[in-house]
Amino acid sequence: MTIKAVVLDAYGTLYDVQSVAAVTEEAFPGYGEIITQVWRIKQLEYSWLRSLMRRYEDFSVLTRESLVYSLRILGLQYDDAVFARLMEKYLHLDLYPDANAALAALKGRKLAILSNGSTDMLNALVKNSGLDRVLDATISIDSKRVFKPAPDAYTLIEEKLGVVPAEVLFVSSNPWDACGAKSFGLNVAWIERVTPEAMALACVESDKVAPLTMFKAIRMQMDELGVEPDYRIHSLSELPKVVATHES
Amino acid sequence: MTIKAVVLDAYGTLYDVQSVAAVTEEAFPGYGEIITQVWRIKQLEYSWLRSLMRRYEDFSVLTRESLVYSLRILGLQYDDAVFARLMEKYLHLDLYPDANAALAALKGRKLAILSNGSTDMLNALVKNSGLDRVLDATISIDSKRVFKPAPDAYTLIEEKLGVVPAEVLFVSSNPWDACGAKSFGLNVAWIERVTPEAMALACVESDKVAPLTMFKAIRMQMDELGVEPDYRIHSLSELPKVVATHES
Repeated sequence: MTIKAVVLDAYGTLYDVQSVAAVTEEAFPGYGEIITQVWRIKQLEYSWLRSLMRRYEDFSVLTRESLVYSLRILGLQYDDAVFARLMEKYLHLDLYPDANAALAALKGRKLAILSNGSTDMLNALVKNSGLDRVLDATISIDSKRVFKPAPDAYTLIEEKLGVVPAEVLFVSSNPWDACGAKSFGLNVAWIERVTPEAMALACVESDKVAPLTMFKAIRMQMDELGVEPDYRIHSLSELPKVVATHES
Repeated sequence: MTIKAVVLDAYGTLYDVQSVAAVTEEAFPGYGEIITQVWRIKQLEYSWLRSLMRRYEDFSVLTRESLVYSLRILGLQYDDAVFARLMEKYLHLDLYPDANAALAALKGRKLAILSNGSTDMLNALVKNSGLDRVLDATISIDSKRVFKPAPDAYTLIEEKLGVVPAEVLFVSSNPWDACGAKSFGLNVAWIERVTPEAMALACVESDKVAPLTMFKAIRMQMDELGVEPDYRIHSLSELPKVVATHES
């Protein structure tokens, strides 16, 4: 079956959310890594919890609330300027190094982002990173007032691009997102950026468990949700190959 | 307003989910604590994700899947007997030491559990701990096929006990559960078992962040979900006082 559109997740897939660690470390020396991990875990939890509680607020609100939580739990003091600087980084996340080349190689198909981010956050991020020149659409789940992996969020692809699920390749490095997209009925490529063997090794340092690595690991390894993505790849650069395989 | 029913969460509120650590440590020396933390985080995540994905499976399935995940991610080998022993502990969790006395002091009101646990898991747990002699009802969200904090789960209280939300005191130590119950419209007491000050101190050991403590902390400190429980207490033993205050 032809792939007419390749739709990618933003945070963690095209953009490295771990790149906030440099800014958090600068603001709070010694805490950069732990703030980054707790911030991300809570940002995701809040998106799922608010969806279930039917108390939707957009992702910029959740990103702010999860940062407030992270700094509070660590007992860290801060002023508005520091807080604003951390938040600002979410509009200037680093693109993964292989993103531009991979998107260029997919030219000719519709290319879009489908993200939990708010419209404002995504538009700023896409513009700041230059992807506005490459993408046909940047789709926020905002209009549905429910976050991925709720099926409603994925319906936006057909609504906005006019491409049916069977002709879409959805790409995410977030295991829950890859599973949600597959459960909805899209063709899905999951990016496994670290192999299980490497991750298991990294989780144990000189015979002791390295909990900070675990914090990352529980975001990067495939989940047990009773559904499997169609393709397991290791970087964005494998996408043209996946499309060719799928169409052959 | 009179409190006609006191309804309590099970896992983490009446029963100490951290008590699995002794069994996990025995099975996997050096890994007991990290398995316990990752197992719990993923068990919760899977309940929210499956609810959102509309792929409900009962809590015993999720508890098994999250344990499979935890052992896999750590690269740990195991046989069926070891796995069964860990799972079995969920039917024999330790009651918090103040649970029996607190429930006895609330006698005269309807007393119930409302839990994400499956009917079978809960009935076994309640029987094994002797609470079947004290509780008027043990309510599983199973019949709704959606987990707390979805509003549907909390509607079961009125359906099963015949008590309207305004006359219910709901008790949970899980911040997301306390917020979900409050958002639904119940009177809510949240049990803060560790103060923020103590937690912030515990998270930093000799000037370095203690990530394992953070894993626990992100389950035990109040979340930023735009809603606040009515009462913040520190142990189950304060419940009679809360009821008296509320009724005065």
